[in-house]
Amino acid sequence: MKTLKLRKVSIDTYKENVAYLHRNCPLYRSEGFQALNKIEIRDGKDTTPVIAVLNIVDDENIVAVDELGLSEQTFMQFNATENCSVFVDHASPPTSIQLVHAKIAGNRLQQQDFLHICKDIVNNRYSKIEISAFLVGCAEGGLERDEMLYLTRAMVETGKTLSWGEPMVVDKHCIGGIPGNRTTMLIVPIVAAHGMLMPKTSSRAITSPSGTADTMEVLAKVNLEPEELRTIAHHQRGFIAWGGTANLAPVDDILISVERPLALDSRGQMIASILSKKIAAGSTHLLIDIPIGPTAKVHTQTEALKLRKLFEYIGDRTGLDIEVIITDGHQPIGNGIGPSLEARDVMQVLNNDPLAPVDLKEKALQMAGRILEFDPDVRGGQGYHLARDLLESGRALQKMQEIIEHQGANTLSTEPAKFKFEIISPIKGRVQEIDNLQIAHIARLAGAPMDKTAGIDLHKKVNDQVAEGEPMYTIYAEFHADYQFAKSAALKNSGYTIESIK
Amino acid sequence: MKTLKLRKVSIDTYKENVAYLHRNCPLYRSEGFQALNKIEIRDGKDTTPVIAVLNIVDDENIVAVDELGLSEQTFMQFNATENCSVFVDHASPPTSIQLVHAKIAGNRLQQQDFLHICKDIVNNRYSKIEISAFLVGCAEGGLERDEMLYLTRAMVETGKTLSWGEPMVVDKHCIGGIPGNRTTMLIVPIVAAHGMLMPKTSSRAITSPSGTADTMEVLAKVNLEPEELRTIAHHQRGFIAWGGTANLAPVDDILISVERPLALDSRGQMIASILSKKIAAGSTHLLIDIPIGPTAKVHTQTEALKLRKLFEYIGDRTGLDIEVIITDGHQPIGNGIGPSLEARDVMQVLNNDPLAPVDLKEKALQMAGRILEFDPDVRGGQGYHLARDLLESGRALQKMQEIIEHQGANTLSTEPAKFKFEIISPIKGRVQEIDNLQIAHIARLAGAPMDKTAGIDLHKKVNDQVAEGEPMYTIYAEFHADYQFAKSAALKNSGYTIESIK
Repeated sequence: MKTLKLRKVSIDTYKENVAYLHRNCPLYRSEGFQALNKIEIRDGKDTTPVIAVLNIVDDENIVAVDELGLSEQTFMQFNATENCSVFVDHASPPTSIQLVHAKIAGNRLQQQDFLHICKDIVNNRYSKIEISAFLVGCAEGGLERDEMLYLTRAMVETGKTLSWGEPMVVDKHCIGGIPGNRTTMLIVPIVAAHGMLMPKTSSRAITSPSGTADTMEVLAKVNLEPEELRTIAHHQRGFIAWGGTANLAPVDDILISVERPLALDSRGQMIASILSKKIAAGSTHLLIDIPIGPTAKVHTQTEALKLRKLFEYIGDRTGLDIEVIITDGHQPIGNGIGPSLEARDVMQVLNNDPLAPVDLKEKALQMAGRILEFDPDVRGGQGYHLARDLLESGRALQKMQEIIEHQGANTLSTEPAKFKFEIISPIKGRVQEIDNLQIAHIARLAGAPMDKTAGIDLHKKVNDQVAEGEPMYTIYAEFHADYQFAKSAALKNSGYTIESIK
Repeated sequence: MKTLKLRKVSIDTYKENVAYLHRNCPLYRSEGFQALNKIEIRDGKDTTPVIAVLNIVDDENIVAVDELGLSEQTFMQFNATENCSVFVDHASPPTSIQLVHAKIAGNRLQQQDFLHICKDIVNNRYSKIEISAFLVGCAEGGLERDEMLYLTRAMVETGKTLSWGEPMVVDKHCIGGIPGNRTTMLIVPIVAAHGMLMPKTSSRAITSPSGTADTMEVLAKVNLEPEELRTIAHHQRGFIAWGGTANLAPVDDILISVERPLALDSRGQMIASILSKKIAAGSTHLLIDIPIGPTAKVHTQTEALKLRKLFEYIGDRTGLDIEVIITDGHQPIGNGIGPSLEARDVMQVLNNDPLAPVDLKEKALQMAGRILEFDPDVRGGQGYHLARDLLESGRALQKMQEIIEHQGANTLSTEPAKFKFEIISPIKGRVQEIDNLQIAHIARLAGAPMDKTAGIDLHKKVNDQVAEGEPMYTIYAEFHADYQFAKSAALKNSGYTIESIK
């Protein structure tokens, strides 16, 4: 078979592999390739071939007729040098696609079936179209609880796993959707100050105004090497870092890149996603927070209970000790929304500042207490008091300062963002409801999380009284365009429902 | 909002819209765009925005920091000039995606729901991921017959429709999967010679060794303008052209571009696909051929009967008069497989050549007869005899010559392809079975349909006797590499099952 010269094309195609072939390439003609075909690329050695979707190019500046271009990610995966000779062939569909068809037809899949599918996905044999088909087959009650268990295990097995060499490694997870909910940054120092191991990797925001990693980054470096994290964990018993580079349950990242734009209700995939990451990260004990509210991810107590049982079922069968708490998700937690404003809230709580948001402190203490009770030496029911003691004595603050120092302190400007606007109450009354989704939307428009100091500072929470014309919250933005967007969105719909009182 | 300069990027992304933005573009940063996000592009006037998937570029030769690049198809759709100012924004998900979620959850959709979905698809508001989700929701019995009807109507309504100004416009369709099955090129001249209007648009091969348009192209131009076709139909009562440019039921083309790689069993989508194209093309009477066989698309009589009832149900409700015949699909029809070899078979039948393949002639006469019986003046049961008379008298040949002349005769070389190889029978025996899929696969490897003269010429059909060492078929190829591929595939599995006779 004829060969082509490899070339890197500087286009970022994220989780999708794309290859570029010139329309006048002799191979294009003779092999009957076509745009959007999947091709298999080999370097002639016995390395694993890379699969990519084909785009046809009519510009020799992008690829010449004797070249094969690979997008940035694809080039990295292929792991060869530019100008080396490569072989190209039609890619056969992944063998596990039969199993996806069986799932779509309503059949129950077994452990080895999910493993087969996950192996093909992690080897990039699935196109986005095929992943979408798999996700739809699993959505809307498509997975029984045993299948969720199998999927969880398969996602763990197809990636790296960490081991901390200790009998107890604790973690927490929140089902999400609540702006400002930065309990992790309080729980880690409290729990680590007690001596429990809590090596916390967090995500950056994708659709929210800030992720824990974005907020922590205001205070410290979060992009650390695995070896650095291991040293910090050893000495400090905890850290708060970004988890993006660890290759833990990589199938999960690929599924999410397709699932998110689809916005499918896929409980099974969500549960497998959360638990596979935790198991792969070496956690042994996990506290899960399910906030309930009309604008939270979970709307009813019934729904939350069903989720709890599924978490427990899979946890019991994978050796992960899971506790689930169901919390109030009717409004944001804390006052600040956006990285800097949230970091301020966290530090106020750690400093026992009288201005610290009470709801954030209380929720963090409640959750830290539950985690402390994983410790056999802590008496049942005493976790909360122990957590409060660790916080109010200043030991948690000291632990946080040590963690920041060892991760590498960041000295970002604490200047408030340049543009600000106050949203006022149109009437005298009482705050009845705060729409999490609208508040998150406005904070993102203002520039969070890209601009650390952008976001929203809430002055009123549910049940607070407001006078006519009194500010309910302040919007902060770094750029004028963002400021205008956020302001006009907030003036159209503030996200607050005020009940009039005479 | 800031604007970008429009640029055409010479990359062919087929049915998927792709836009290219430089990583250092200020908009990329401030708007939080990310690779694979969907964006909406406007030109500031009141034209319909174009939706595209975003790729991020790190090379200013592809797009500069102040430019927005569009792939070839996207640029054409956007219909503006290079360097004009464009506005870019996050695309909101198509509003009809809620209906897709409802379908996935097992709900029944209504006429207006399918119309809403098809409108969003035709306006490129659906990504491939979303189309895949829709198809999976419709697959494996996901559509009731009324929903197939609604989908058919919606696909017709969202494209152009042709009208021929006559009460009877006939057409045929074969469910496919049978190599060499070129009855269309015999039926059209027979039926047109009788005076019935049969304006036949056909497809090119996608996964088969030849489509009717590929084979007709050996004899005549098939890529004609709508006005030319109308004139030919008026004077000749028929033509055989490529139907790719007419924008009839365009949603169908988009669905197929995603459905094909998925290889889903989606009966509802197949039926809607076939019928929407025919209705949009202005057909009033349609003959559908369902071949049955172990390597045909339809395997059993039961399955074929179910399909027939569905075709009839939808035909009755859309004013399309449908007849269905169920035929033998146990082996290829005719001897030649590949454009030139098939065209030779067709011309042999029209010329009443004693070497003409009998099965091709008989099947064409049977089908032409059924179409002729759509004519109220033809007595029931007399169609076959009338068809035979039109063929054997030479009137069909004369009509075919007129059609070829008016479409524009092609004078492709009739030299056989350069490389040839005979596949011989290993034993003395009788041909028991021919695997349609393997024969098609070998013919494609040999270069069909890209190389017109490449393909397979069958010398033995089912029930024929063969001596040991006697050729069963000959492979023809234009290029040596193709020749090697086809030969080694055929030596590994010839596709023939020979029953030994002593």
